Amino acid sequence: MAFPGYGAGPGGFPGMQQDPLYGYFSAVAGQDGQISADELQRCLTQSGISGSYQPFSLETCRLMINMLDRDLSCTMGFNEFKDLWQALNGWRGTFASFDRDQSGTIDGHELQQAINSMGYNLSPQAMNCIMKRYSLNGRIPFDEFVSCAVRLRALTDHFRRRDTTQTGNASFQYDDFIQVTMSI
Amino acid sequence: MAFPGYGAGPGGFPGMQQDPLYGYFSAVAGQDGQISADELQRCLTQSGISGSYQPFSLETCRLMINMLDRDLSCTMGFNEFKDLWQALNGWRGTFASFDRDQSGTIDGHELQQAINSMGYNLSPQAMNCIMKRYSLNGRIPFDEFVSCAVRLRALTDHFRRRDTTQTGNASFQYDDFIQVTMSI
Repeated sequence: MAFPGYGAGPGGFPGMQQDPLYGYFSAVAGQDGQISADELQRCLTQSGISGSYQPFSLETCRLMINMLDRDLSCTMGFNEFKDLWQALNGWRGTFASFDRDQSGTIDGHELQQAINSMGYNLSPQAMNCIMKRYSLNGRIPFDEFVSCAVRLRALTDHFRRRDTTQTGNASFQYDDFIQVTMSI
Repeated sequence: MAFPGYGAGPGGFPGMQQDPLYGYFSAVAGQDGQISADELQRCLTQSGISGSYQPFSLETCRLMINMLDRDLSCTMGFNEFKDLWQALNGWRGTFASFDRDQSGTIDGHELQQAINSMGYNLSPQAMNCIMKRYSLNGRIPFDEFVSCAVRLRALTDHFRRRDTTQTGNASFQYDDFIQVTMSI
């Protein structure tokens, strides 16, 4: 029974049941309305968001949850899931535009172009570090590209919040530095 | 043919051939005297350094190489390999002392004790971030523990070099911050 004027009844917020994404989410979320890394992996695989690319590794799914885990619960609610979905769609589009031969991988030079196209302004040295970290035999698969994008976005957000004068320089206490860098 | 008084002949430095570790290293290193992440994985598996624990993942092997990759070659020479071997032996000893039931995993509380025993002085918040990042269903296998130890050591080294006044506070330019944090 619905309660007109009071939004959705128990078990959801207004609009949730209508959102097609909610189907993927609720199929794995269970009663607590939260998903953990292995549930996220199942959910993303079932949704087909990777398209023809390999499904996401558990490691990448853990990174995704940690990036958005505002309440430090190690799980993800539906609103965080929607944010992630939107980011993933963007990254898939970026990746596909550089994976011209549809091999499921891009090379180091294309990774640099992809990072530039996402608005990051990095030196050749920083690009080189990233390329070496994420490529294997010179190629970067979609899953690794997403890992890279997740970490770059989260680290940049953390940095920006500490760059109080917006001059590209930030100060960290050691403990804070470890929290920021070891959590993703 | 050896050349007395001139150390080792071509293909090695003095003492290399006598070092038992050199056997593991040279079996995979090939002619260039360097090993890549997949060769390191093979080398460490064959050497049995993990003991009864699961062999290291390729991801962990890449982290290990990046931690010690002073010349940014993405490969590891014999001297870097010896440094790594020493560190790995220490971490295995630390892990084993907390894995009392020899299950091959430790719990989050034991991870915190292990990190303390390695001399790190971290807040409960930082410990919590690390625990959440490296545990799956509350347990941390040896391979993940080594990943954690590798990153914690490398990040702490990078921080210390920038903490010029040794007051636990360091300043980063954005590009430098990305190089430090995205390379491992």
